Amino acid sequence: MTRIPVAVLGATGAVGQKCIALLAGHPWFEVAQVVASAERIGLRYGETVRWRETTPLPADVASLTLSAAEPQPGIRIAISALDASVARDVEPLFAAAGVIVVSNASAYRMADDVPLVIPEVNASHLRMVQRQRATRGWTGAIVANPNCSTAAFITAVAPLHREFGIRRAVVATLQAASGAGYPGVPSLDLVDNVIPHIGGEEEKITAECRKLLGDIDDDEASAANIDVSPMVHRVPVLDGHLVSASLEFEREVTPAGATHVLQSFRAEDRVAHLPSSPERVIEVDSREDRPQPRLDRDRGRGMTVTVGRIRPCPVFHLRLVALGHNLVRGAAGAAIQNAELVTAVKL
Amino acid sequence: MTRIPVAVLGATGAVGQKCIALLAGHPWFEVAQVVASAERIGLRYGETVRWRETTPLPADVASLTLSAAEPQPGIRIAISALDASVARDVEPLFAAAGVIVVSNASAYRMADDVPLVIPEVNASHLRMVQRQRATRGWTGAIVANPNCSTAAFITAVAPLHREFGIRRAVVATLQAASGAGYPGVPSLDLVDNVIPHIGGEEEKITAECRKLLGDIDDDEASAANIDVSPMVHRVPVLDGHLVSASLEFEREVTPAGATHVLQSFRAEDRVAHLPSSPERVIEVDSREDRPQPRLDRDRGRGMTVTVGRIRPCPVFHLRLVALGHNLVRGAAGAAIQNAELVTAVKL
Amino acid sequence: MTRIPVAVLGATGAVGQKCIALLAGHPWFEVAQVVASAERIGLRYGETVRWRETTPLPADVASLTLSAAEPQPGIRIAISALDASVARDVEPLFAAAGVIVVSNASAYRMADDVPLVIPEVNASHLRMVQRQRATRGWTGAIVANPNCSTAAFITAVAPLHREFGIRRAVVATLQAASGAGYPGVPSLDLVDNVIPHIGGEEEKITAECRKLLGDIDDDEASAANIDVSPMVHRVPVLDGHLVSASLEFEREVTPAGATHVLQSFRAEDRVAHLPSSPERVIEVDSREDRPQPRLDRDRGRGMTVTVGRIRPCPVFHLRLVALGHNLVRGAAGAAIQNAELVTAVKL
Amino acid sequence: MTRIPVAVLGATGAVGQKCIALLAGHPWFEVAQVVASAERIGLRYGETVRWRETTPLPADVASLTLSAAEPQPGIRIAISALDASVARDVEPLFAAAGVIVVSNASAYRMADDVPLVIPEVNASHLRMVQRQRATRGWTGAIVANPNCSTAAFITAVAPLHREFGIRRAVVATLQAASGAGYPGVPSLDLVDNVIPHIGGEEEKITAECRKLLGDIDDDEASAANIDVSPMVHRVPVLDGHLVSASLEFEREVTPAGATHVLQSFRAEDRVAHLPSSPERVIEVDSREDRPQPRLDRDRGRGMTVTVGRIRPCPVFHLRLVALGHNLVRGAAGAAIQNAELVTAVKL
Repeated sequence: MTRIPVAVLGATGAVGQKCIALLAGHPWFEVAQVVASAERIGLRYGETVRWRETTPLPADVASLTLSAAEPQPGIRIAISALDASVARDVEPLFAAAGVIVVSNASAYRMADDVPLVIPEVNASHLRMVQRQRATRGWTGAIVANPNCSTAAFITAVAPLHREFGIRRAVVATLQAASGAGYPGVPSLDLVDNVIPHIGGEEEKITAECRKLLGDIDDDEASAANIDVSPMVHRVPVLDGHLVSASLEFEREVTPAGATHVLQSFRAEDRVAHLPSSPERVIEVDSREDRPQPRLDRDRGRGMTVTVGRIRPCPVFHLRLVALGHNLVRGAAGAAIQNAELVTAVKL
Repeated sequence: MTRIPVAVLGATGAVGQKCIALLAGHPWFEVAQVVASAERIGLRYGETVRWRETTPLPADVASLTLSAAEPQPGIRIAISALDASVARDVEPLFAAAGVIVVSNASAYRMADDVPLVIPEVNASHLRMVQRQRATRGWTGAIVANPNCSTAAFITAVAPLHREFGIRRAVVATLQAASGAGYPGVPSLDLVDNVIPHIGGEEEKITAECRKLLGDIDDDEASAANIDVSPMVHRVPVLDGHLVSASLEFEREVTPAGATHVLQSFRAEDRVAHLPSSPERVIEVDSREDRPQPRLDRDRGRGMTVTVGRIRPCPVFHLRLVALGHNLVRGAAGAAIQNAELVTAVKL
Repeated sequence: MTRIPVAVLGATGAVGQKCIALLAGHPWFEVAQVVASAERIGLRYGETVRWRETTPLPADVASLTLSAAEPQPGIRIAISALDASVARDVEPLFAAAGVIVVSNASAYRMADDVPLVIPEVNASHLRMVQRQRATRGWTGAIVANPNCSTAAFITAVAPLHREFGIRRAVVATLQAASGAGYPGVPSLDLVDNVIPHIGGEEEKITAECRKLLGDIDDDEASAANIDVSPMVHRVPVLDGHLVSASLEFEREVTPAGATHVLQSFRAEDRVAHLPSSPERVIEVDSREDRPQPRLDRDRGRGMTVTVGRIRPCPVFHLRLVALGHNLVRGAAGAAIQNAELVTAVKL
Repeated sequence: MTRIPVAVLGATGAVGQKCIALLAGHPWFEVAQVVASAERIGLRYGETVRWRETTPLPADVASLTLSAAEPQPGIRIAISALDASVARDVEPLFAAAGVIVVSNASAYRMADDVPLVIPEVNASHLRMVQRQRATRGWTGAIVANPNCSTAAFITAVAPLHREFGIRRAVVATLQAASGAGYPGVPSLDLVDNVIPHIGGEEEKITAECRKLLGDIDDDEASAANIDVSPMVHRVPVLDGHLVSASLEFEREVTPAGATHVLQSFRAEDRVAHLPSSPERVIEVDSREDRPQPRLDRDRGRGMTVTVGRIRPCPVFHLRLVALGHNLVRGAAGAAIQNAELVTAVKL
């Protein structure tokens, strides 16, 4: 069986490298084009990348030549790991040329006609692409995945929202260094230290939560009426964003009831069968000190979100802790899973 | 001038060592007795302690012989850095023998007749000692300081409570390893990791906040009607507990108004003049990424609490970040300051 | 095909857990007996272990009941992850009962009649078992693997010794926290710190290097005439011991020559085909800043040693850096590979 | 008493900030000019610096305006914390204009006519300035201090060299992150990791050791005949370079003898009385696990070097561990102490 050629945009950065690592041996896709910043055009990927994944750089990707930011013939899908500032210009070029861009960048996440998708949560939002194409005249499309901490949080609580209706949430994130890319956070800032600030992150989380949990009606999505107050922190962890949440619900809920809902949750079939979908999208761990980033981030090859410490809350109804791998469930894996979804539904 | 002889109970542990380090050169007190576990009785302090402070072990303390858990003649003040389980038995022995025990242990913190005191917050609670003595027949007393994370949080927000009335708070703590003592948390648990659990901590914070902010009337304290929901985390930081809070108030408050209240706050005179009281008990830092444990924990020799990121909250009224040195403002320094207070007011 | 039942001694510790993790799905062996300290006898492994591996605890091992320290019927091989003090008594019991004990403990490593074996280095030393059985009257045997830092170093330099004859070596180790087991090194000692001391380690390395590289003649091993001066350090790394060495040789050697020898090295066939033997036992990485523990420790599923920075030395002849996974190549993997070797050669 | 106005070159970097922190309240010097890169000229220091010291930025320096790289009237001493590439051009400008530049940069360290000085080791090398002035026609001068790891090592072993004659040394360094400046080493490279490479560092150490321990004769210094083989490593430590050394001597030496020499060492009077000179330049710590960076780096306000683990060596004669604060003894403090020395001797 022939694999579908895909382009990776921003291929030399931390998320781009993770994309290439995850796509090694992918059953559907094959990396056929790699795009990086202008000064690298013409270099071979293997020569110019400072490869930092612990799995070996695949030889077929190492030998690819970095190209300019325009789709090569035959490319129908591009996975974008670009910085937002670059994505703003480059992604529309690809979309206009007929390429479906599954993007990890924030540039178009909140655009009215761009679906922001976690397949297990709101695959139906893909319908927004019809309006996007109509409005923008594209034959391709842009489909976005959320910010890395939003991804862990919403994947974990979406089933609770379905069942009990989340009204308000105060959320503390403890985010890994890899979320800032490479070189990212200086070690002088993270040895024996935490930083209670990540630029723009709190606003993104608040906004993306409302969009992800919103309804879709006739190709138009409406924001969910949920207030999320994030308090973000960078911590000395390599990978894995931990989210502690205090949740207020519309309907009555107990820790046991919430646990049951999360343990019973299964993705709809068309999503569950995607190659990147983990066997269990949510695992509830009842040990009192779990989840922990180092021990739990790699569950389901990084695509499973682990939830623990489901307990009553003196202020709202429930407290819980969720953990997701920020570079997989929160970035590269999310974009690839979206690429699989748009392929499966023949978008 | 002769200095007042004090005993340090639990003198070889992390908090005990910090007490001895802070008492070096103290203008009022001199360490005259050191008490540790039974198997060390008769050893010289300097021989048996595994000194881990970065200031040198004072020679006069090094030469003291560890004694059994009963007050030596002339001791009127004991600083207790005992574990709760030991404190439960030992502290009453001292109090019954006429010693004022200023205790960092949790054993009696929530007892009805034991004042839980942060001098800058609720020095008036010391009046509870009259009832304590009447009830228990002690000539001494037990005066407690709060848990290390409560100390940072309440020191920071008490002035806001006075002015605007805190009703509810969701609070995330990022707590340093030294809060668990030595050996405490294994490095295998804290390198590239955080732990979203500290046994009993969340319940302590909820309860102690209510007591600390309560009113005192006729030697009886009543708990404040405040709901605090803590979500605690151990992080790879040596010293300094960071607390991120989302606060709901009874009266209208703006970030500017809250900043003004915190910047204007001064302790009452009898407290401000204590040797351990910092020049400013609260410092507001307006830089967007402060406070940070490593950079800010030593302000005011560890007794100042730094507050930053005072900003609106999408769920409640305000979010902010507070930081205090857990071993100083949250433990050893707190007990010593309480010892100074009971001395100043001739309890 | 039936798998051979093996016992794991010291099954709940860090090395014991790694053994069980590595044996999951092993083609030859199946964990049939688990032994831990007396107070756990009768408990199910899954109930009592504090599992800290990131791969799931295999269900069949979880359901085993911890037994007393004597071999169950049918056990012919025991993998010992015991502390030395316990191993001293327990391992002879198993050996006397006909069990071949492949031991990671230091208790018998330096005994005259106990082979100390790295299969790729000195498989021929297994012949010492004949004398061991004759002397001790055992039908089983004890076969030891070296200390974790010795393992990385000697695996890396044995081919150089064969070719050029190592005379002297000054060796600095940067050793991971997991080498001290769990709970092991307190985080207060390893955050923002290194410790230039590990009890007994330097003496072990000096002695074990001489034994490992020694000749075997008529069932007697003679120590190699090599002087190794180790300077050991504990560093804030989870797994992976890094060894920097300055080497003096008997014969002329260049960096290029040494690189060629290491790149060409292959284990003898009977070793290369063992299930735990990596495809390449030594990988030379020519990047100027490699090997690094986090990026390189998992090569060859932890059994490959990575060598880098092969360069001239102003004092001796060559400097180089070697890295091995201390819990795999240096402990659990080493013992399992020895178990495979004694099985393959029908010891 | 009027203080001497000094300029700080490279004032906003990590070493420059440390200079300014150390000069706060200096009895002889006052910061009168601050120089940084061109784009900051005209800005106030306090506005543009990202102050990362834990002591407050002195108000008088905060209000200084950053100037171009030429000496202001009245400046006779400049402390250079410039990068080598910039220092190459800027330092001669100052020296030609009559300013004595005490430089932490590597640009002129190895120049034949530039003294490389650790006051307690080779203050007599200052005589080289006469030839420097004659050759270059300068009325000022350049006086350099060594690389940060060389500083710790040579300060520790110079007394041993005087007494016993060091012939060869194999040296492993474990260097702190702050040695690479800010932002410096990415946290993704130092969490759960060490890096066995620092560009150019090994060559600098080898060369600087020979120069520092060389003799001076008639204004000409000759290199000491010492071979030093460094093996350098970056470790997850904030401040404090640890150096483990194996030493070969010309004359017989025992651990006790070496300990005695180090404990007895005192700087010559004119050096001992400099404001930055610590009470004891070398402290020997006999505890088996010391020195450690976090616990020992601040001794003597960062100017004391701690030596421990003096023990026999299976290859050479002695092994030992030395620790110095890289930003103080190894950089900013070193330059300031040199500035004091040139002032005291009226260079």
